[in-house]
Amino acid sequence: MKTNRALNAKKTEAREYQTPASGIFFTVKDVLYEGRSKFQRIEIIRNKDYGRVLLIDGLVQTTERDEFYYHEMLVHPAMASHARPAKVLIIGGGDGGALREVLKHPVKKVWLVEIDGKVIEACRAHFPGLKTTFRDPRAELVVADGNVFIDKVRETFDVILVDSSDPVGPSTVLHQESFYRKLKSKLNPGGIIAAQAGSLMLHLDSHARKSVFLKKIFRHSPLYLGPVPTYPVGTWCYNFLSDKIDPGKVRTLYVPDGLRYFNPDVYRASFALPNFLAERLKKGK
Amino acid sequence: MKTNRALNAKKTEAREYQTPASGIFFTVKDVLYEGRSKFQRIEIIRNKDYGRVLLIDGLVQTTERDEFYYHEMLVHPAMASHARPAKVLIIGGGDGGALREVLKHPVKKVWLVEIDGKVIEACRAHFPGLKTTFRDPRAELVVADGNVFIDKVRETFDVILVDSSDPVGPSTVLHQESFYRKLKSKLNPGGIIAAQAGSLMLHLDSHARKSVFLKKIFRHSPLYLGPVPTYPVGTWCYNFLSDKIDPGKVRTLYVPDGLRYFNPDVYRASFALPNFLAERLKKGK
Repeated sequence: MKTNRALNAKKTEAREYQTPASGIFFTVKDVLYEGRSKFQRIEIIRNKDYGRVLLIDGLVQTTERDEFYYHEMLVHPAMASHARPAKVLIIGGGDGGALREVLKHPVKKVWLVEIDGKVIEACRAHFPGLKTTFRDPRAELVVADGNVFIDKVRETFDVILVDSSDPVGPSTVLHQESFYRKLKSKLNPGGIIAAQAGSLMLHLDSHARKSVFLKKIFRHSPLYLGPVPTYPVGTWCYNFLSDKIDPGKVRTLYVPDGLRYFNPDVYRASFALPNFLAERLKKGK
Repeated sequence: MKTNRALNAKKTEAREYQTPASGIFFTVKDVLYEGRSKFQRIEIIRNKDYGRVLLIDGLVQTTERDEFYYHEMLVHPAMASHARPAKVLIIGGGDGGALREVLKHPVKKVWLVEIDGKVIEACRAHFPGLKTTFRDPRAELVVADGNVFIDKVRETFDVILVDSSDPVGPSTVLHQESFYRKLKSKLNPGGIIAAQAGSLMLHLDSHARKSVFLKKIFRHSPLYLGPVPTYPVGTWCYNFLSDKIDPGKVRTLYVPDGLRYFNPDVYRASFALPNFLAERLKKGK
């Protein structure tokens, strides 16, 4: 048993990762996979409490025990708000968790665009629960840079999910205004985008900065919240972006059976923001 | 700089504390206080991210940076649901945070019953924000065992807040049926109890076990949730207990100015439970 080199958990900012004064730790029972792609270091380890854990550049991306919190809250608020999401695009999400949740809805086709094929391979081999997901005939895996894919693709989508890593390294562009303008141009009328947006407490600057430009692009752009035990400070933020759908006024939600976290009460609750966050968003930058 | 001996954070169960495979860590910038009472070991340290941190027997009880999440969510749902809470009892809460929140309401008198006088002394000396709270003429500090106090006290209360540690050691009794029956006998008509109930994910057994007897004692006994970054898995549970007040039907909320977390939207949202928790409570033990 060795102690995980990555003391700080997923998606924390680089500076915090380099000099952690607090964070989440995991001990390593065994290492299932260790590899390096041209983008990043990929590891899958086993931990006594959380089962399999995927780390990228030493940051926790997902764990067997708590991945459903994150994936259900990234996917279902948008999917459940849309009456008939036939075509869905996932940017990132190479671990397959978001794809599995999307496929619980009666969609026609889902594109998963992951920049790093090695992440898909490693998860296929070592996260057994996700194997069948990748084989679903409705799923098309594309190994490509999401920002380049979105420029070239001719399809348009009912729901787009941004399951990126944080705004450091290759994901930086996925947090910028130009990227969201491109996404909007590929959205069908009535379409919805959901994007992981960072930690409740650690990424306040980022929430405020993004809220300024998202408000210009979309008629509705609320943040919503959900717990993720293994992400920094335990509560995560997501953007809900749409010109048509105001989550505060949605009457009918399309919720698949068998979910472990999400339900209509959770949907409505997730848009309630604590004062310190609401005030910061109001102030903007 | 030394690494904190307590790798696991507040209120985790003893067995997990002894062999942590995951948890929250804090580095120690300096130690402000170290002492031992006849009940427990008390430490106040400083951490770069969280400021002052109170530890009891090595478990994080509260930190300067995130204590408002916990204290606002313990105190205000009950206080805001009650039209006129004049007399309030706090069991535990020697750090003074819950007391500070109660005093934001126009109460007549608040009793704080803490078993360990050394906790009050240490916090008075080393948590500067709480000093004035203890001096408020409406506050009466009682150093006593909450379970013994409740047997003897002749007062009755509009709101009772249980700010205990977890069901190990001296707090075990504060999580049992007999204690809640006693509390109810000291509650004025229309009164409300709120109690910290443990971690969302780690204490499912305890939530299920307690829900069985709380349902027998109180007409309304929902759990509600709130994030606490430095508690295990980052989301905490609280019991809301009342014969009269059903939080789902409360129309008017009494919310003091200047809160950092709590507001009416947060109140309503906090009672939405994820499927895995709702299903477990339904099953009971």
